[in-house]
Amino acid sequence: MFGFELLKTDGKARVGRIATPHGEARTPLFIPVGTAGAVKGVTPDQLRAAGVEMVLANTYHLMLRPGAETAAKLGGIHGIMGWAGPVLTDSGGYQVFSLAHLRKIDDDGVTFRSHLDGAEVRLTAERAIEIQRAFGADVIMQLDECPHGKAAKEHVARAVRRSAEWARRCADAWAAASRLSAAGGHQALFGIQQGGVWPDLRRQSAESIVALDLPGYAVGGLSVGEGHDAMCAVLDDIDALLPREKPRYAMGVGEPRDLLAAVMRGIDMFDCVLPTRNGRNAQVFTFDGRCRLRNARWADDPEPIEDGCDCYACRNFSRGTLRHLFMAGEMLAATLATIHNLRFFTRLMEAVRSAIESGRLAAAAAEIIQRLDAGQDEEDQPPAQMR
Amino acid sequence: MFGFELLKTDGKARVGRIATPHGEARTPLFIPVGTAGAVKGVTPDQLRAAGVEMVLANTYHLMLRPGAETAAKLGGIHGIMGWAGPVLTDSGGYQVFSLAHLRKIDDDGVTFRSHLDGAEVRLTAERAIEIQRAFGADVIMQLDECPHGKAAKEHVARAVRRSAEWARRCADAWAAASRLSAAGGHQALFGIQQGGVWPDLRRQSAESIVALDLPGYAVGGLSVGEGHDAMCAVLDDIDALLPREKPRYAMGVGEPRDLLAAVMRGIDMFDCVLPTRNGRNAQVFTFDGRCRLRNARWADDPEPIEDGCDCYACRNFSRGTLRHLFMAGEMLAATLATIHNLRFFTRLMEAVRSAIESGRLAAAAAEIIQRLDAGQDEEDQPPAQMR
Repeated sequence: MFGFELLKTDGKARVGRIATPHGEARTPLFIPVGTAGAVKGVTPDQLRAAGVEMVLANTYHLMLRPGAETAAKLGGIHGIMGWAGPVLTDSGGYQVFSLAHLRKIDDDGVTFRSHLDGAEVRLTAERAIEIQRAFGADVIMQLDECPHGKAAKEHVARAVRRSAEWARRCADAWAAASRLSAAGGHQALFGIQQGGVWPDLRRQSAESIVALDLPGYAVGGLSVGEGHDAMCAVLDDIDALLPREKPRYAMGVGEPRDLLAAVMRGIDMFDCVLPTRNGRNAQVFTFDGRCRLRNARWADDPEPIEDGCDCYACRNFSRGTLRHLFMAGEMLAATLATIHNLRFFTRLMEAVRSAIESGRLAAAAAEIIQRLDAGQDEEDQPPAQMR
Repeated sequence: MFGFELLKTDGKARVGRIATPHGEARTPLFIPVGTAGAVKGVTPDQLRAAGVEMVLANTYHLMLRPGAETAAKLGGIHGIMGWAGPVLTDSGGYQVFSLAHLRKIDDDGVTFRSHLDGAEVRLTAERAIEIQRAFGADVIMQLDECPHGKAAKEHVARAVRRSAEWARRCADAWAAASRLSAAGGHQALFGIQQGGVWPDLRRQSAESIVALDLPGYAVGGLSVGEGHDAMCAVLDDIDALLPREKPRYAMGVGEPRDLLAAVMRGIDMFDCVLPTRNGRNAQVFTFDGRCRLRNARWADDPEPIEDGCDCYACRNFSRGTLRHLFMAGEMLAATLATIHNLRFFTRLMEAVRSAIESGRLAAAAAEIIQRLDAGQDEEDQPPAQMR
């Protein structure tokens, strides 16, 4: 069964442990994204070796292909991913808004055309739960509406109202399913707070989902273009708005500095495509900033990506070799850079947990950010934030 | 230092052991191809786990990118591949003839334009040895000229004369290098027999390279369009033409049935792109024939690729999941299919060695071929042989 244990705090920051039917995960926790059922370019063994303790899969992609029914026949999301550890699925809503064509949203749900074949698909609160039950992830998410970071307040307010109503309907469907089946009972439903950058909307949204007494709570609508400072302002209120005994999940966050800022404000869980997407594009993260492996300066370099990194790539390959493999178009290059980046994010979480345990997170975070900034190449400025 | 030990024979077939400065490899031995310094899609750890004991890299690709000088700075071919075990490099000649533009061959060597940037490059016997010394592989190959399988006899006869002369010059350069450097002395130079399908040319070619008393001998000009029966006819004479105490290597072979036929005629080593290239294209090998994983029949199939296979893919993924990952364009699909195919080829070699050790190779090979044929889908006929 799902559970969350709070082990240590340092200010608002927390070290904890999530228990699921597929094993435990330590928080603060970074969750890599396995969009279509695979964390791109790496095997489950490589994920485990990189210190990954939970993975995310996207309901939108998987409901369109292979479909919930086929997924269930293949052992659900754990069978599809070949991953025996904890899995989280989102509701599908976010990708409907960012990827699908001709979407029509109403108070009852959203109708859209698949980006794969144009087929019309309907997603409602109840259907989002039904699909996620078929996938069988350990943590499932309510259907929500996530407006863009620049959306007008009235648009965001409507999304908050809809998301609150969908949360209630998801909770009802989830409770009914939990009564009906053991599998349902093993899944933990998280509610999602929306509200953009408006404190009153964020408060209203939090109150409506907290009233449902769900196993966990997510903060949605971050890393959608609002910027680091606006994100911090939203997160400043989170510790007061969400119950302390439940895990808190900042969806789509993010950049190393965003992770640190969020942890210091009481967030426990994160997911982001940065380590995998950037790895495939030859950009690797280090504690001394980012590095683009295609750069000619690495051509003859026999050193690993990062001194002191224990990842498979750093133990076996030099920057020179990795550059060669990227220039030659070898998929192995993407795999190795992804492994390193995943390990960077899990090492960052290890450093954060260790700092919280010794009560010095603020100082440790400042040191980490200073090193990241000092090492940042001019060409290596962060791209627009992505979820 | 390089060595070859003959452990057991069964008719002309042999079980042996190759010793190199980077460890041992058991023969009959299948060697996967790491064209540009990577066996496409898999890490060295995954190679090792699939039972691979030696890998091949292509001098042509690596001399053009990253270049011999850069490779040397990056730890040579072992550093580039991240592979601590035995490595074999070819001379570059074969790809010059198959990939390069505007090649001009003369008795002294070949001039060609790089397929990457059009730069003019000259490759001679001495240069082939010099480049392979910089790469530092455990087994290196003489420069040879490999005519197409349909080439006229007079063309093949000229290629035999040239290859013999280049073998002598490679041997001289190799001997001089071995005197000069410890690294040179640890590399084993193999001569290459050419001669197409003409027994007199094959004999003439064998005699000229055997006279050089090299550490090993390869049979070139196979799997270049001559067909299975013509290949067998060439190999029928090999045991008499090449010294029994030296390893024998059939370059670019091949199909499972070709491997069995070659082993029964006294061949010890093979390389081929089939497991990797076909794996990337969703075609997997099993002892019951091939299987195309994109086929809709596998959509809901919860079984592994092959019952009884101990590869990572079969232990963790179903055919249904693999089909999904191929349809979704996930690179993980290519990695997993490649791992399975590599394991199929190493399991085939294990079965062959075990059969030779118990003196029943002929019967075992017949059984294996019967199963392969019985399980072969109509759509799954072997494509044109490839090297």
